[in-house]
Amino acid sequence: MNYDLIVIGAGPAGYAAAIRAAQLGMKVACMDDWIGSDGAPALGGTCLNVGCIPSKVLLEVSQTYSNLSTLYPGWGIAARDVALDIAAMMAHKQRIVTRMTQGIAALFRANGVHSLCGRGRLIANRAVEFTPRNASADQSFDQKPQIFHAEHVILAAGSKPVELAVAPLHENLIVDSSGALAFDAVPARLGVIGGGVIGLELGSVWRRLGAQVVVLEAQKDFLSACDRQIAREALRQFRAEGLDIRLGARVTHSAVKQGKVELGYQDDDGSEHVEMFDRLIVAVGREPSSDGLCVREAGLLIDEWGFVHVDAYCLSSVPGVYAVGDLVRGPMLAHKGAQEGVMVVERIAGQNARVNYDTIPSIIYTQPEIASVGATEQAIEAEGIAYQVGVFPFAANARAHAQGDASGFVKVIADAATDRVLGVHMIGPGSSELIASAVLAMEFGASSEDISLTMFAHPTLSEALHEAALAVQGHALHVAKAKK
Amino acid sequence: MNYDLIVIGAGPAGYAAAIRAAQLGMKVACMDDWIGSDGAPALGGTCLNVGCIPSKVLLEVSQTYSNLSTLYPGWGIAARDVALDIAAMMAHKQRIVTRMTQGIAALFRANGVHSLCGRGRLIANRAVEFTPRNASADQSFDQKPQIFHAEHVILAAGSKPVELAVAPLHENLIVDSSGALAFDAVPARLGVIGGGVIGLELGSVWRRLGAQVVVLEAQKDFLSACDRQIAREALRQFRAEGLDIRLGARVTHSAVKQGKVELGYQDDDGSEHVEMFDRLIVAVGREPSSDGLCVREAGLLIDEWGFVHVDAYCLSSVPGVYAVGDLVRGPMLAHKGAQEGVMVVERIAGQNARVNYDTIPSIIYTQPEIASVGATEQAIEAEGIAYQVGVFPFAANARAHAQGDASGFVKVIADAATDRVLGVHMIGPGSSELIASAVLAMEFGASSEDISLTMFAHPTLSEALHEAALAVQGHALHVAKAKK
Repeated sequence: MNYDLIVIGAGPAGYAAAIRAAQLGMKVACMDDWIGSDGAPALGGTCLNVGCIPSKVLLEVSQTYSNLSTLYPGWGIAARDVALDIAAMMAHKQRIVTRMTQGIAALFRANGVHSLCGRGRLIANRAVEFTPRNASADQSFDQKPQIFHAEHVILAAGSKPVELAVAPLHENLIVDSSGALAFDAVPARLGVIGGGVIGLELGSVWRRLGAQVVVLEAQKDFLSACDRQIAREALRQFRAEGLDIRLGARVTHSAVKQGKVELGYQDDDGSEHVEMFDRLIVAVGREPSSDGLCVREAGLLIDEWGFVHVDAYCLSSVPGVYAVGDLVRGPMLAHKGAQEGVMVVERIAGQNARVNYDTIPSIIYTQPEIASVGATEQAIEAEGIAYQVGVFPFAANARAHAQGDASGFVKVIADAATDRVLGVHMIGPGSSELIASAVLAMEFGASSEDISLTMFAHPTLSEALHEAALAVQGHALHVAKAKK
Repeated sequence: MNYDLIVIGAGPAGYAAAIRAAQLGMKVACMDDWIGSDGAPALGGTCLNVGCIPSKVLLEVSQTYSNLSTLYPGWGIAARDVALDIAAMMAHKQRIVTRMTQGIAALFRANGVHSLCGRGRLIANRAVEFTPRNASADQSFDQKPQIFHAEHVILAAGSKPVELAVAPLHENLIVDSSGALAFDAVPARLGVIGGGVIGLELGSVWRRLGAQVVVLEAQKDFLSACDRQIAREALRQFRAEGLDIRLGARVTHSAVKQGKVELGYQDDDGSEHVEMFDRLIVAVGREPSSDGLCVREAGLLIDEWGFVHVDAYCLSSVPGVYAVGDLVRGPMLAHKGAQEGVMVVERIAGQNARVNYDTIPSIIYTQPEIASVGATEQAIEAEGIAYQVGVFPFAANARAHAQGDASGFVKVIADAATDRVLGVHMIGPGSSELIASAVLAMEFGASSEDISLTMFAHPTLSEALHEAALAVQGHALHVAKAKK
């Protein structure tokens, strides 16, 4: 069968590409082999099935549950016998996941995208071998492969959790991020290997629900990709919340013993420690799912870490073949992949699209939320650029107090010579939504003065961005000028 | 005593002007006669004391209380004997108000603004008569007036609730917005005269806490200043929530009888109705507080509605005298006043500041939140401008589902010829913060394509703005193209 475009993978990068291509009039097939917990095909990839979406649901529920005993009594709201039904919470999570994955299926139908359940493999620059997956029965791949031809192929197979040789997954005791989204009870004592985004989000969920949580991070620097000032504040707040974060902790062995997990690690000064956990989450990063994605003869260049080599426009080494999302360089973020997918099909259609890799927002959905766009202060300093910083604390923001969380701050970094905004970093309430304004401003090459001259509604959390921009010139209204 | 600048009024417009002037090196006095519930001076005016801030606290608490029975059980969170302690809620509200008003006092001290408790009255273009208020004792104004001189005077006396002759305030039975923020119990049956921002916010608070609420709005059009599509959706949702909103209802009389309020109104077809309420809120708008603000000889031009006449830069008819905020033309919004105050002092200091009156965001903090910036569809249509509309529903937004509210939509209106964004209107979760991105985009003269090409983090509510911008050209990813 012939298509204008075949997309392999229906995660955010793949499905966005497929839908946009169909909108542009292309005949499109999208192949994906994910089967949901109900045994039916589940489009949306990791993000919708076991990533962004279910984790945000659990973060929301667990924060609310925690607020019931910590925050709301001070508001005058009292309740007795507050209880969390884990099965009901998981069912709620699954309802939202199913609604979203079925939403993608509906969008495919509405746009005329051929949705094929099974595995796609590139066998030449215009040919894809498709092995159907038997969703209804035993979910096997034993049906006969078919060959499809297309003018263009987009590889969007996504990524998978990195496995750790010293802590292999073990049933529901040693789990990856997917397993950690499906515990059937709150573990009394939970270990998390990896203090990155995923480890912190999942650790937070179970901490709020009552688990004692120990996070082991191999690096000495906490959140090393973040602005240092943000990372310091985050570490302080996470520890205050009760996350036991141990830095410079390199895991050396693990063993399952009588239904518990024994974990050994070496700390920074070389001493050995052993901890017992009821459950252990391994969250040490993700790697591209490029295994089996193409035959050797296809000539696709894949680097030693498994990333498909692409140019700035996501064209691979094979003519007509593109790769997007977690399969290629750049941050493993759903929105980055989706924007790449859209760019590729718009360029195929002759449009002049591009992705601005300098303004990709990044968010950690913990409490406090952490969000950033652009360069960190340490990166700017390392480049020798003269800069100015404006910081504004949420403690001086009225809406933050009204919402019950006035921790953290917004930080704007601007070029000292031109005042152009180089980076915006925030930790505190609403950061995940506030960052959108910062991204838009940076897309327009805004100066801190441009943001200062813009009107921000009162009372909103967004005013903190306004004030941080004002603070770059020492003009914040609601905070006394910092001593020089 | 002589000053570079005297500011009369320490609400958002006045205090922002005073602080910015001090930052710019001026010798500044700010006069304000507000006395808080604790008998001490309370800076911040209506907004901090009995407006934006306390209402947002009560909206937050009441929504949470309501969620406990309606939303959270579906998340797996169960609780028994959920109860609201009104006194504790009010104490919580007062703590935040006091923290904020004391924050302004601290900022005045830190910036060297002379804070004078009492009433200021303009007596000539460089002279202000100041009557101190005895805050500690009987709060009288019997101290001897003093005369102060200043190079510049800013009038920022704010506004007050409009009184209704047919429903005069009566103790705690017939109250204005201030009284409605201080009820000591949930009224069984609450009447609200006025279906505008204030009436809807206050009506929502008490509805969520259990009151049966009837809102009487004299106009036939609901939220007549809003985009029609937004207003229709708002009316539908408010009614579904249980607000009994009656349009075209003109109040004809009221009477207090045996501790209850009898209220008569005429409906649109002329028939008369009588309702009994336990409490009645009069929220029919606000008027400028220009009474007694100046002596006739000062020559200040004040219009028949009480607004001080000013030019585009807030200069009044008297040289050296400016008026800002609710005292002058334009929307009565704290952020509009604050930006005017800052503009005036920056212009006094020789800077080239201005306020862009075309990009003032406006928010109603109900559930769902309603926010807008720029022109409504009906205004654009009336001007005969060819335009395109993009709408995106929160029902297709994953974060909205994770947060438990996926109602409403975002609407972007762009010029059909240039694609420049002319207006953005939203109703739904997070609208109060999302609007900041729309304001920034419009400040930069963004096209809908500019927003489309910007990356929005996933999963966030902000993506709904992205998709609405994409929808202008029919390119929204997560919603099937609307039929033409």
